[in-house]
Amino acid sequence: MPKKQDTRHGQLPPTAWAVLGLLSFPGERTGYELKKWADASLRFFYWSPAISQIYAELRRLEGLGYASSRRSGPEEPRTKRQYAITETGREALAEWASGTADSGPPVLKHPLVLRIWLGHLASPERLRERVELHVARTEGELKEARDALARAEGIEEWSYPQVALRWSERQQLAELELARAMLADLARVPGTARQHPSDTPTPG
Amino acid sequence: MPKKQDTRHGQLPPTAWAVLGLLSFPGERTGYELKKWADASLRFFYWSPAISQIYAELRRLEGLGYASSRRSGPEEPRTKRQYAITETGREALAEWASGTADSGPPVLKHPLVLRIWLGHLASPERLRERVELHVARTEGELKEARDALARAEGIEEWSYPQVALRWSERQQLAELELARAMLADLARVPGTARQHPSDTPTPG
Repeated sequence: MPKKQDTRHGQLPPTAWAVLGLLSFPGERTGYELKKWADASLRFFYWSPAISQIYAELRRLEGLGYASSRRSGPEEPRTKRQYAITETGREALAEWASGTADSGPPVLKHPLVLRIWLGHLASPERLRERVELHVARTEGELKEARDALARAEGIEEWSYPQVALRWSERQQLAELELARAMLADLARVPGTARQHPSDTPTPG
Repeated sequence: MPKKQDTRHGQLPPTAWAVLGLLSFPGERTGYELKKWADASLRFFYWSPAISQIYAELRRLEGLGYASSRRSGPEEPRTKRQYAITETGREALAEWASGTADSGPPVLKHPLVLRIWLGHLASPERLRERVELHVARTEGELKEARDALARAEGIEEWSYPQVALRWSERQQLAELELARAMLADLARVPGTARQHPSDTPTPG
């Protein structure tokens, strides 16, 4: 059940605030640039938006007067629409960001752990493969979080994104440790050991 | 974009499999019992369903012939509907659980880290309060995960739920460490130190 927020803009979903948040950093940006930036930041802790979602939020924000846009001039090879935050938008965002409303608990949907919880229905071999696939994917995510952090480092306007990306780097490291500990736990489940070749009596 | 699954039941959402998964453990259960059980297990790694969602999934599963239900007899003080998995349901669930389809990446929506990322819009004081609130809530979640694990321990049919709950316990511990490391990072953001009383020159 969504909590009543302590701002008059409480009805906006967090994804709208997230897009307005992207616009709150210095500079104008196209929808495509916002999408690329979200993929290198928001994605690690909140949201990996489709480009259509970015444009839907931009339309909503323009409708509220929180963002404005302009077409690039004839000097550009292709016209593009550039978005910027308005003063009203900045005030509304600051009100939301500094409000006393609880930001709410994290939401986690971990399909791997759901499959492990149902492990009695699958072979131990298949479960191990699934966890190993998750480890490999998480190693890729860790590298991307580190790359994003490296790009943000040393830029004072990005001090808080740096804190969020440092959290993301550690979160991916924790995810790896959790997966490795789960592999060790899986190997100790009763009945799993007999799947190991050395425990299986050779026929004949 | 949802990936095509390697089963003919690929169109069912994971929440339907999760409810069928609850029914795959020994015993019949009412919708209310399933809700209570989901809150003490699934909630930590996948889903905290509303009772209405549980009943919607049960109707869907009955419609597919994957679950059956019966009213309790006249010997019960109040009639209740008890649900059980059918043979067809067990086969479909096993096919899903042991399929080779990638279970997909975890989805994380962390509203606290979103607020930290937008920290330039709030006071350092307010940010710290938010993180501390998150720490207190996470300590409560850790206790609940440990209680759930204690209830599952020593029961062989629940070997895999034990693995999932051990993962959940460690995940809450990691969440606490991540929050504490973030508090330390926040204290080092340029411009934050001046908020500390000892750094403020006393007037006069």
